[in-house]
Amino acid sequence: MTLNILFAATDARWDEYKDVLPQAFAHAGLKTELSRNHAPDQTDYIVYAPNSPLQDFTPYTRAKAVLNLWAGVEEVTHNQSLTIPLVRMVDHGLTQGMVEWVTGHTLRHHLGMDAHILGQDGQWRSTVPPLAEDRRVTILGLGTLGTACAQALCALGFPVTGWSRSQKHIHGIRCLAGGDGLREALSSADIVILLVPQTTATMNLLNDDRIALLPKGAIVINPARGPVIDDDALLGALDSGHLAHATLDVFRTEPLPPAHRFWTHPQVTVTPHIASVTRPKTAAAAIAANIARNEAGNDMIGVVDRGAGY
Amino acid sequence: MTLNILFAATDARWDEYKDVLPQAFAHAGLKTELSRNHAPDQTDYIVYAPNSPLQDFTPYTRAKAVLNLWAGVEEVTHNQSLTIPLVRMVDHGLTQGMVEWVTGHTLRHHLGMDAHILGQDGQWRSTVPPLAEDRRVTILGLGTLGTACAQALCALGFPVTGWSRSQKHIHGIRCLAGGDGLREALSSADIVILLVPQTTATMNLLNDDRIALLPKGAIVINPARGPVIDDDALLGALDSGHLAHATLDVFRTEPLPPAHRFWTHPQVTVTPHIASVTRPKTAAAAIAANIARNEAGNDMIGVVDRGAGY
Repeated sequence: MTLNILFAATDARWDEYKDVLPQAFAHAGLKTELSRNHAPDQTDYIVYAPNSPLQDFTPYTRAKAVLNLWAGVEEVTHNQSLTIPLVRMVDHGLTQGMVEWVTGHTLRHHLGMDAHILGQDGQWRSTVPPLAEDRRVTILGLGTLGTACAQALCALGFPVTGWSRSQKHIHGIRCLAGGDGLREALSSADIVILLVPQTTATMNLLNDDRIALLPKGAIVINPARGPVIDDDALLGALDSGHLAHATLDVFRTEPLPPAHRFWTHPQVTVTPHIASVTRPKTAAAAIAANIARNEAGNDMIGVVDRGAGY
Repeated sequence: MTLNILFAATDARWDEYKDVLPQAFAHAGLKTELSRNHAPDQTDYIVYAPNSPLQDFTPYTRAKAVLNLWAGVEEVTHNQSLTIPLVRMVDHGLTQGMVEWVTGHTLRHHLGMDAHILGQDGQWRSTVPPLAEDRRVTILGLGTLGTACAQALCALGFPVTGWSRSQKHIHGIRCLAGGDGLREALSSADIVILLVPQTTATMNLLNDDRIALLPKGAIVINPARGPVIDDDALLGALDSGHLAHATLDVFRTEPLPPAHRFWTHPQVTVTPHIASVTRPKTAAAAIAANIARNEAGNDMIGVVDRGAGY
């Protein structure tokens, strides 16, 4: 039996997914017909973006589930016409991408790559970096992303300290918590990586006082959210020579305005919010796997508890 | 009892080791006196560089072993006056450093970092790289260094193919061998990393014909030895657009002459033979650990079979 899959999202999303979704369905062993125009009473599953025109699910009498294209479902959980299961995106690519970006930029700073990438001037600069075992890395935030990055860096030989609000226990990682823990985590960091969520408690987490705790010459890497750093405090510490470099993937305003000082500061590297993004290929695979699970009578991954809201 | 350790090497080596060796001895629980001037009949161990003035070991009647400062012992194995054990350097830092350099530069190219490091011009270039699982890495050479690098990249999610002269079996790595294996290893490489030893068989291993097997847009990374690449073939493939980039740590002449085209070619990154070097700290720890082993009646690591020559 062919499953009719309705794609209810914007044109831009359709361009991203119109090829990878059929491939993912085929790879999962599903016979499907993907379309943006299935009749409501002929639709078996709905691949959905909350900002699509489809807001009344009542006519979709045959549909078995709504599969959200991303993790956030706050704009759809309160839709009263949606009575079938709603599934949020659980994409291993989000964590994997973050691990690759964080590991890559940590090694870049550890190895002093920029001196070579920017300095191809015929000078044989044979300064040898220390081994990873002598480069202390601190990760602020030990959620899914922080933990995965801590483990990857630990496996490469870095001594890793992790800090979180509540005490965690992760094999191989020195886990600290609370206010005293934060002071210790910062004061022993050659490289500090921010992976805290954006909450009222983490706003300006890296401010003047906390930056002052970092050893002179420390490096800041921020792939979390812009507001967790006080931008003026960061620029001041770079200008004074207290910090050696900041590599920033996230900003208070995105895209970062062309006139922002981060773009021109020689000790700042801007990357355009690419550390962790939903990639159509892994997202399509997650959607296909869930439909295959449901068709086989198994639980889907990421089914939303609409009472709790996530 | 205090052990008298004679340091027999050049002034430059003394400057590197005069602080780290005593620290390593103390860390290993050894009471030692390190000096460049112990009397021959009062010397217990000799830390040795084959290019030091000490060539007649006959007066060192009390010495228990000669600990070479590096791995190569070809200049001392035939010294007839040396009758006590000779130990070559086995330094975990050599492998660890290579893993860090190779992993770092592989991630650098994988993530497209140079576009950001070199392009801080206010343009928000939000091109997202594929995940590591979609970036095929081939390592030529599966000795100690190649195997360690293959495993580190595999752990980060890259599909890794390894090629060696004789067939190897390494968990998680697609191991190929022989001529057909080399063709397959090259034709499926988005990034190819050279870690073969320099022998007559590997001279110009990457020549015109073999570079032509690489997919268009491939990247070459060479931390092995300069002569394993045909430089003109490499430059030709970069100029024609067949190859996207080459990152080279080793050269036929080192330091690479300032006028060499590798320095100015926009698609070549030169690093100054830093991927794998003996670091005094790890080398000193290896020497101290061996003396502690010998004092405890255990076998030292790296004792040279002077008949075999290594």
